[in-house]
Amino acid sequence: MYSEKVRKLLKEKSIEVGDRAIVEKNGRSYEGTLMPRIKSGDTNCIVLKLDNGYNLGVEYKGVKLTKTKDLPFTPEGKETGKLTFDKKKPQICVVTTGGTITSKVDYKTGGVTSLSSPEELLLKVPQLADFVKIRVVNPFNTMSESLTHEDWQKLAKVVASELKRSEGVIVTQGTDTLHYTAAALSFMLKDLGKPVIVTGAQRSTDRGSSDGFMNLICSTKIAVSDMSGVGVCMHGSMDDDHCIFIRGTKVRKMHTSRRDSFRPINDLPLAKVWPDGKIEKMQEVPKRSKLIAKADTPFESKVAIIKSYPGCMPGIIDYYVKKGYRGIILGATGLGQVPTYGKNSWIKSIENATKKGVLLCAAAETIYGRLNANVYTEGRMCRDAGVFYLDDMPIETAYVKLGWVLGRTKSVEKAKEMMATNYAGEMGKRSLSETFLY
Amino acid sequence: MYSEKVRKLLKEKSIEVGDRAIVEKNGRSYEGTLMPRIKSGDTNCIVLKLDNGYNLGVEYKGVKLTKTKDLPFTPEGKETGKLTFDKKKPQICVVTTGGTITSKVDYKTGGVTSLSSPEELLLKVPQLADFVKIRVVNPFNTMSESLTHEDWQKLAKVVASELKRSEGVIVTQGTDTLHYTAAALSFMLKDLGKPVIVTGAQRSTDRGSSDGFMNLICSTKIAVSDMSGVGVCMHGSMDDDHCIFIRGTKVRKMHTSRRDSFRPINDLPLAKVWPDGKIEKMQEVPKRSKLIAKADTPFESKVAIIKSYPGCMPGIIDYYVKKGYRGIILGATGLGQVPTYGKNSWIKSIENATKKGVLLCAAAETIYGRLNANVYTEGRMCRDAGVFYLDDMPIETAYVKLGWVLGRTKSVEKAKEMMATNYAGEMGKRSLSETFLY
Repeated sequence: MYSEKVRKLLKEKSIEVGDRAIVEKNGRSYEGTLMPRIKSGDTNCIVLKLDNGYNLGVEYKGVKLTKTKDLPFTPEGKETGKLTFDKKKPQICVVTTGGTITSKVDYKTGGVTSLSSPEELLLKVPQLADFVKIRVVNPFNTMSESLTHEDWQKLAKVVASELKRSEGVIVTQGTDTLHYTAAALSFMLKDLGKPVIVTGAQRSTDRGSSDGFMNLICSTKIAVSDMSGVGVCMHGSMDDDHCIFIRGTKVRKMHTSRRDSFRPINDLPLAKVWPDGKIEKMQEVPKRSKLIAKADTPFESKVAIIKSYPGCMPGIIDYYVKKGYRGIILGATGLGQVPTYGKNSWIKSIENATKKGVLLCAAAETIYGRLNANVYTEGRMCRDAGVFYLDDMPIETAYVKLGWVLGRTKSVEKAKEMMATNYAGEMGKRSLSETFLY
Repeated sequence: MYSEKVRKLLKEKSIEVGDRAIVEKNGRSYEGTLMPRIKSGDTNCIVLKLDNGYNLGVEYKGVKLTKTKDLPFTPEGKETGKLTFDKKKPQICVVTTGGTITSKVDYKTGGVTSLSSPEELLLKVPQLADFVKIRVVNPFNTMSESLTHEDWQKLAKVVASELKRSEGVIVTQGTDTLHYTAAALSFMLKDLGKPVIVTGAQRSTDRGSSDGFMNLICSTKIAVSDMSGVGVCMHGSMDDDHCIFIRGTKVRKMHTSRRDSFRPINDLPLAKVWPDGKIEKMQEVPKRSKLIAKADTPFESKVAIIKSYPGCMPGIIDYYVKKGYRGIILGATGLGQVPTYGKNSWIKSIENATKKGVLLCAAAETIYGRLNANVYTEGRMCRDAGVFYLDDMPIETAYVKLGWVLGRTKSVEKAKEMMATNYAGEMGKRSLSETFLY
């Protein structure tokens, strides 16, 4: 624990462990997260975890301390040792799979470790019991960067099964690949008539500034709303006052650490959602219906993404063809180009892959916008060599969809037809100007 | 040519060939670019090039025609058959290399072909002669998706040479990989005391809505300004009234087709620039000085980018190691993770590559934000296996820098030291909230 003098200083400035602060001393300024004082350390020394990961200790005398903008959403309920639900409230299910939202900081290492049980998360937001009853299911625990299509398949099956008895299902996971999971569930849940919300947290739940509580509360409000479909619910701004619900096939993590990192790509959010239950729809959203969801999970694992960049040699395409891959998403530059001239030209490798029955599709490396192979000769060369263009489909969604489509058919022609079919809003009809960098 | 009735209708609505318009008929609505009527076609039929690349013909009767927001910047001068410059005006150099800015639409194919000479571009903006004299150099013509580091090397040498007699140099190229070229010139031009501006166009120069003219005029204003350094100058908004000048190491093409597609990444623009010469600096910009630029162009071509995504097998790392690659940029998810558990784990391949002397660096796949390997056990595992973290350096810049660094040293330790050194503003000290999705 810090010395009395340091504690007084922190109290004056309303700074608690886990808050972000700027420490100024002798003309130098450091910004970071306030850490607790470890036993063996100098208790007069204020310890900050800097953004580069290092801990910095500054003797408190002469220090100017400022709390930085990092408004926490404070759950109104009081944490209790157990949580009981009213059986008459609508039933929802929370499927936890690991990740930051079910983690806490290990202040010894500065790293993050799991909560002792997934239910621990709910104890922090007991007011959920006021309007729903919650069943928690924990099929597996994996940090999201290590998830695979097999996990998506398990998840789709668990969600479909839970939807039989729930008004809506919330899936929590690590945020690194949350958008891939949202896309996978969008394709793998057939005849979905209820909402499925994928959410997570950018800050672990023992921190005052954790976004997990509000994300969970807003997700719960969506779970009992009149909407249906798969979407991501995460913070809508730095202000920490509302979340946005984004179509599962049009969403991407656009920042390493911000609470409002998840953004719609070539789309507006479906809705803004406030923790008090207010929902403001921003476009037409499918309504809840009596449809009974089925998990439709075949998936071809032999799919890959290849990013196009100056100097990227076509051998990488040959590599995947030799390995027996059946589909490749090319991250094409601009309106849909890849290297077409000189020794780096991809055209021969594309033609060869196409001949061998590999389906190559192009998605936009720019993230935003719509492809158009017809503007430049080079685009037409790619198309003529066999590349199939995916319009305004985000590259990550394109990858998931290609695996899902090739899991269903052995015919390249049928696969192209399916890639061009809009199953879950993955392709938008109109390009709205305000969707750029939303 | 269209029939008289169609021409009358177009004139009423102030719509010209090349403009964007919405055509409504029988309850259906189409948006696209107005094409000229080809000889063999029905002259009562209005032809639109739709965004999907197809041409659509609609008989004019009963058509509702609306011009959509696509404000052209109109150069004030009048196109002339030749351009003469005043020898007393400041000298600048325009280095053209191909791309849309020196192209025009071939209305037969709907595709794009080159201008007959690079000077043709200047004829369209003769008012440039009012304040500068321009030398045009055309070292090569290549569409930007096919550029390689060898082109960057040629360019750096041409630019360094031209800077000896010019106040500033403008490089024009295709926009697909313009940000890579800007990064390459940022590293390859040592002791730069003058401005080097990389620009291009999203619409070819024969179209009323071409952005090329204003980009060129604003670039010229920067070329004779008090700023120095390499930057990209492109449209700053959809309003078509100003450009932004963006640091060459912190810029990315973020949209397939918009005129304001180029955006600063983890940075503010250096300045806003208006075609009348007004410059509004948005941060501290290095001043013009007497330094004499040298081209410093060694480059290691054996570098690659690997994007991390669920299901991406580590064999792709082994592939590049076997091929003798010396450096790899890993597009890591979130704060800097790659798959670390299960059969897809990258850790062994990373360790093996590191042992073989390959330098693996991590950059953020999210585009925005700063990496931090220390928050999660998984990040620390990557770091311990040998991955070197690149803070807030954009992934494309990281790739170019790694090739440039490995072209200079055979020592991995020295290369790491250089990767951590800020040569051209590629790493930012502070994270400003307003830079996210700027």
